[in-house]
Amino acid sequence: MDEREILSVGRLVAFTDGVFAIAITLLVVNFDEPSGPDSELAHQLTDQWPALLAYFLSFAVIGRFWVVHHRVFAIVRRLDFALLGFNLVYLAFVVLIPFTTEVLGDYSDTTEAVVLYAAAIGGVATFNWLMIRHALTRDHIQPDRRFSAAPFAGTAALVNPGVFLASIPVGFVSPLAAELMWTALAIAWPLRRRRALAGVQRTPRQDASR
Amino acid sequence: MDEREILSVGRLVAFTDGVFAIAITLLVVNFDEPSGPDSELAHQLTDQWPALLAYFLSFAVIGRFWVVHHRVFAIVRRLDFALLGFNLVYLAFVVLIPFTTEVLGDYSDTTEAVVLYAAAIGGVATFNWLMIRHALTRDHIQPDRRFSAAPFAGTAALVNPGVFLASIPVGFVSPLAAELMWTALAIAWPLRRRRALAGVQRTPRQDASR
Amino acid sequence: MDEREILSVGRLVAFTDGVFAIAITLLVVNFDEPSGPDSELAHQLTDQWPALLAYFLSFAVIGRFWVVHHRVFAIVRRLDFALLGFNLVYLAFVVLIPFTTEVLGDYSDTTEAVVLYAAAIGGVATFNWLMIRHALTRDHIQPDRRFSAAPFAGTAALVNPGVFLASIPVGFVSPLAAELMWTALAIAWPLRRRRALAGVQRTPRQDASR
Amino acid sequence: MDEREILSVGRLVAFTDGVFAIAITLLVVNFDEPSGPDSELAHQLTDQWPALLAYFLSFAVIGRFWVVHHRVFAIVRRLDFALLGFNLVYLAFVVLIPFTTEVLGDYSDTTEAVVLYAAAIGGVATFNWLMIRHALTRDHIQPDRRFSAAPFAGTAALVNPGVFLASIPVGFVSPLAAELMWTALAIAWPLRRRRALAGVQRTPRQDASR
Repeated sequence: MDEREILSVGRLVAFTDGVFAIAITLLVVNFDEPSGPDSELAHQLTDQWPALLAYFLSFAVIGRFWVVHHRVFAIVRRLDFALLGFNLVYLAFVVLIPFTTEVLGDYSDTTEAVVLYAAAIGGVATFNWLMIRHALTRDHIQPDRRFSAAPFAGTAALVNPGVFLASIPVGFVSPLAAELMWTALAIAWPLRRRRALAGVQRTPRQDASR
Repeated sequence: MDEREILSVGRLVAFTDGVFAIAITLLVVNFDEPSGPDSELAHQLTDQWPALLAYFLSFAVIGRFWVVHHRVFAIVRRLDFALLGFNLVYLAFVVLIPFTTEVLGDYSDTTEAVVLYAAAIGGVATFNWLMIRHALTRDHIQPDRRFSAAPFAGTAALVNPGVFLASIPVGFVSPLAAELMWTALAIAWPLRRRRALAGVQRTPRQDASR
Repeated sequence: MDEREILSVGRLVAFTDGVFAIAITLLVVNFDEPSGPDSELAHQLTDQWPALLAYFLSFAVIGRFWVVHHRVFAIVRRLDFALLGFNLVYLAFVVLIPFTTEVLGDYSDTTEAVVLYAAAIGGVATFNWLMIRHALTRDHIQPDRRFSAAPFAGTAALVNPGVFLASIPVGFVSPLAAELMWTALAIAWPLRRRRALAGVQRTPRQDASR
Repeated sequence: MDEREILSVGRLVAFTDGVFAIAITLLVVNFDEPSGPDSELAHQLTDQWPALLAYFLSFAVIGRFWVVHHRVFAIVRRLDFALLGFNLVYLAFVVLIPFTTEVLGDYSDTTEAVVLYAAAIGGVATFNWLMIRHALTRDHIQPDRRFSAAPFAGTAALVNPGVFLASIPVGFVSPLAAELMWTALAIAWPLRRRRALAGVQRTPRQDASR
């Protein structure tokens, strides 16, 4: 039964990569095509500075989730319907990111844009956590590789969905404060990753058993 | 001749995944980019509530068809021109879904939007059934795996295209009644799936012969 | 050196499939999103009847070229830069099809739309022929499989680009006459394919040597 | 550990191919859909001549970068986080090309459009160089294949990002001069490639050691 299962994981991954590739490319619709005479072009382009910022932010966010998906599904050895389902709901939120990025780029200082953006990223982060948690508890991960996926479904990893979901009520009081919460998370992230990686590298290699 | 045939199925599947990934991602064009002053943003976003509903509905529908395609083509062992043709017509209807979803999101209480949506989904469901039927009758499925594909091309599976196609004339009388038919199908679906799966699990495993 | 070459063909094929999948899915932009009151919806949708026709025509055309690419590259055993180049120019014309389809759907009885459409399809057909010709003459095809690719680069296969390119001057006189030329080609095509296939099936199987 | 690493490179390549395929296909949004009466169609289409030129230019540029990526990653044997990161930033610039192409097509004689286009291509070229440089210095390339990747990260290869980045200040003085710099690069490129290839072919084959 092994081969068929590998094929299935392969196809899930291929489909997911397709959705990620399109979602990340659609971020470009974020920019408004200039129109009007040449003399207004400079003005119209420089006005899109917040959109460029939002573009690189969302590119980094989608890219980071893709890297996590990549790492975890490299060691998933089989699928069940629930895992397929989690992956689809997860993708449904990923696909919303280009739209919420566009709104954030155009209305960066409003509660609505901030809440919408936080809800989409929070949804991705939540289902990312649940999906990996499910794969671990249902034993869909290669036993000798569990340590590679565990950090993404542990208590510390709840910080990511936690900060985004917590920034929703904060955004109702102050959009700027919510954006600062995201920035803090982004700054803290490399530090946390370094620690997590150190943990992985301390683990003895067990590849021989594969 | 085996290897080349596997390659061919692999490429059909990769192409189909690409089309599915793009169609599911294009559902996001469903949302209208807000414009105008900040004060109107909340209003413009909350007005898109039916579009959000239509988005998740179509995401679930496309996702479900993708899962069925995934399951069936994992056990297809060879292609003929007719199967390629069925798959292309099937995809031609899948690709229409983002457009019909957009119209449904904007005009959810009209006969036209309901009929258009039912026709697109009905087309996908019909060709899904015909395609799997063809693969089974022409013996393109691995013999020891036929039980995995058979439920999708049996009489009971005609319920899916049947309900959607039947909702077209109903939609001319009452759009709401047609939408309720879809809802009933969605509610009944997990029950029917559970029964079908029970059937599969009762079947003895025959993988050793592979 | 074999493995690396197979990998390269695999990636060319994956990239090409991606472009085809997106081009075929973008055909849906062909349809104009309705706007305005509910009462005008029926009118706005039925007005798009020529666009629906153009959609299915282009879906069939792109699908057919994809099937040919699929068949030929399944037996390509190595690439050179010229083959990569032919494939890229070929794709540059494929990518134009959604746009030319849109123009044809909106302006179906004008010389401009017909000429534009014929030029794009003629470009695809021409480079399709040149690309397969190149693969055959430079010996990039598996020797025992040449008969599978040869019909697409023979004299008879020049009919496809020939008819489309010839319809360009015809379109300047009568757009309708050009469209009838395409229809005649589409009607004649299954007959020609049947004969070509008969030819292939007469050829003895030589797979054992692989 | 080998197999998992190959899988990872495979998935990076698949994702990258997806992004390239979509970016190259989105170039078609470059063309404005005609509107208005039939009599204005010819005028509206011929007015898009610079857009067609920009389309083929960008198709060639994206295609060329894809070929380089294809060649280099065929011999990458493992990934680290930095290489993933370089690849993502590189893709972030690739994705900008359809937008910058559109602006260049519409405003080809302005400083703004030329600078924007040069910045995007310059960014791709710079990160292309850095990424391959990193792969070589960190020993991620198959040792017996280094000569295949080395020309893309050597001093001579700095000409590509150099000319594009240098054309940014030039564009502020004269947009036309900047465009001529790109043309000169394009004309010189086949000559330089021939020399580089000659170098590769002089290198003795070492494939046996693989």
